[in-house]
Amino acid sequence: MIPGFTGSPLDRVDAWRQDPAAVADAMASPRARLLRLNGLDPAPGADGLLDWTSLAEADPDHDLALLGLIDGEPRFVALTPAVAPAARRSAALTVMLDHLPASEAATFAVARSLVDWHARHRFCARCGTPTAMFRAGWGRRCPTCRAEHFPRTDPVVIMLAEHAGRVLVGRQRSFPAGRYSALAGFVEVGESIEEAVARELAEEAGVTATGVRYLVSQPWPFPSQLMIACIAPVAGDTLRLDDNELEDAFWATRDDIRAALATDPAARFIAPPPYAIAHTLFALWLAEQGS
Amino acid sequence: MIPGFTGSPLDRVDAWRQDPAAVADAMASPRARLLRLNGLDPAPGADGLLDWTSLAEADPDHDLALLGLIDGEPRFVALTPAVAPAARRSAALTVMLDHLPASEAATFAVARSLVDWHARHRFCARCGTPTAMFRAGWGRRCPTCRAEHFPRTDPVVIMLAEHAGRVLVGRQRSFPAGRYSALAGFVEVGESIEEAVARELAEEAGVTATGVRYLVSQPWPFPSQLMIACIAPVAGDTLRLDDNELEDAFWATRDDIRAALATDPAARFIAPPPYAIAHTLFALWLAEQGS
Repeated sequence: MIPGFTGSPLDRVDAWRQDPAAVADAMASPRARLLRLNGLDPAPGADGLLDWTSLAEADPDHDLALLGLIDGEPRFVALTPAVAPAARRSAALTVMLDHLPASEAATFAVARSLVDWHARHRFCARCGTPTAMFRAGWGRRCPTCRAEHFPRTDPVVIMLAEHAGRVLVGRQRSFPAGRYSALAGFVEVGESIEEAVARELAEEAGVTATGVRYLVSQPWPFPSQLMIACIAPVAGDTLRLDDNELEDAFWATRDDIRAALATDPAARFIAPPPYAIAHTLFALWLAEQGS
Repeated sequence: MIPGFTGSPLDRVDAWRQDPAAVADAMASPRARLLRLNGLDPAPGADGLLDWTSLAEADPDHDLALLGLIDGEPRFVALTPAVAPAARRSAALTVMLDHLPASEAATFAVARSLVDWHARHRFCARCGTPTAMFRAGWGRRCPTCRAEHFPRTDPVVIMLAEHAGRVLVGRQRSFPAGRYSALAGFVEVGESIEEAVARELAEEAGVTATGVRYLVSQPWPFPSQLMIACIAPVAGDTLRLDDNELEDAFWATRDDIRAALATDPAARFIAPPPYAIAHTLFALWLAEQGS
């Protein structure tokens, strides 16, 4: 069971990022390739895969970020400042993601998070001066105060509260009709994964975690979360929902989860798609139940 | 075994952050307390604990952030823009941390990360305009482009490569004399915890992870990391060190780890302090070995 957006064949060649000569060589290489994007979405390529073109196709006004190497070939993406930052995925992308192989989606995730971060971080947060890319696209530096800024990765806990053989699923108002998922929230400064899980379950559903067990993680490039999936036994099943966060929630049985993952038309709810870690979390929990 | 900087009694009352009337009431409460800091360090209080004072002591020029409630009392910290941002802890703080109870250190961690983030993020990264605090200190908003910015939490993997009953410890040039620790590195955009562990071990030590097992996490407020501790069995014990990252590394036995944790003068290396997650990671690994 491979989590979504993982398994990219990309070798990030971190050492090259601090070696301008290595980056210049990579850019001059006839084997260098540029990822084609439509805004923040992948341009459709042959066989429904990602599309790569020559660096000669790049707009000379755009910086190029070095994603890394695939099959020994340097892979770049153009940093398009005019991209409208979009935390949510487009309807077209949602359709694409249903068909894109996980390893292709994983390479796209790196590019999307990086392009979006540059577009939304063109000025120094410390002094307000326009910044310039450095480290081959893996940072921006301020020419005035010399502050260095690096791409953000925001850790998010996503968890199944578990009680008497059932797990808690909830829906936000913004979800598609019928969709329920595991509860989730950002890890805040000054707290551990375990503390964030307990806090979010208490805040959103009024339930008290008696333990927290890590299961699996994946990146989520909308815009750049690290999703950390856990299971938390809770002390009771009485819910007190935070109406701002959750429109509804209920305790799902093994059969409910199995039907949802099987996209059974009679299922009690519609599960998130396979590339979302909630799907993986449901499947891992079900496997643990021996069914 | 409680990880460092966890176990704060703070109730973050997230709902209040979006309720200006609740925050105003909290500020007007005679029970409201202000955390006393010297720059980014705690001001020493009675019995070596944190020191809290009346909100009347706050500089009226400084915004106050609502940390949350302790013992039902609203707790605030002043956002001092002149604080010199310091990723490293001061010598005085290092001494303090050896004596501060974990729950006190955990409350301090929230305050320190928050104050430091505001000091380094006073301008809009999207358009360069000076921003203003909102959400009771848990964010900043741009008056020009309306972008909202939230405190950063940077996930870091820290891991013990394990081979034939030994684990890999390494030292950076900047470490105190004799200190060795687990290897560590930032999780990048577009990768999972498991992928980050494998990448860092390959980059820094040239070893190949055959699996990754999550153990425990904690915040690290210098400035605001989320430390994610793992154990990774590796395929072989031949090392190829990245000289930029590591000055030295070796495979430590159970006895080596036990002696280091016991601060045995004859120990092969000096372990990180108990409030560092590497210490917890060593102790958990040792416990797993049945010794």
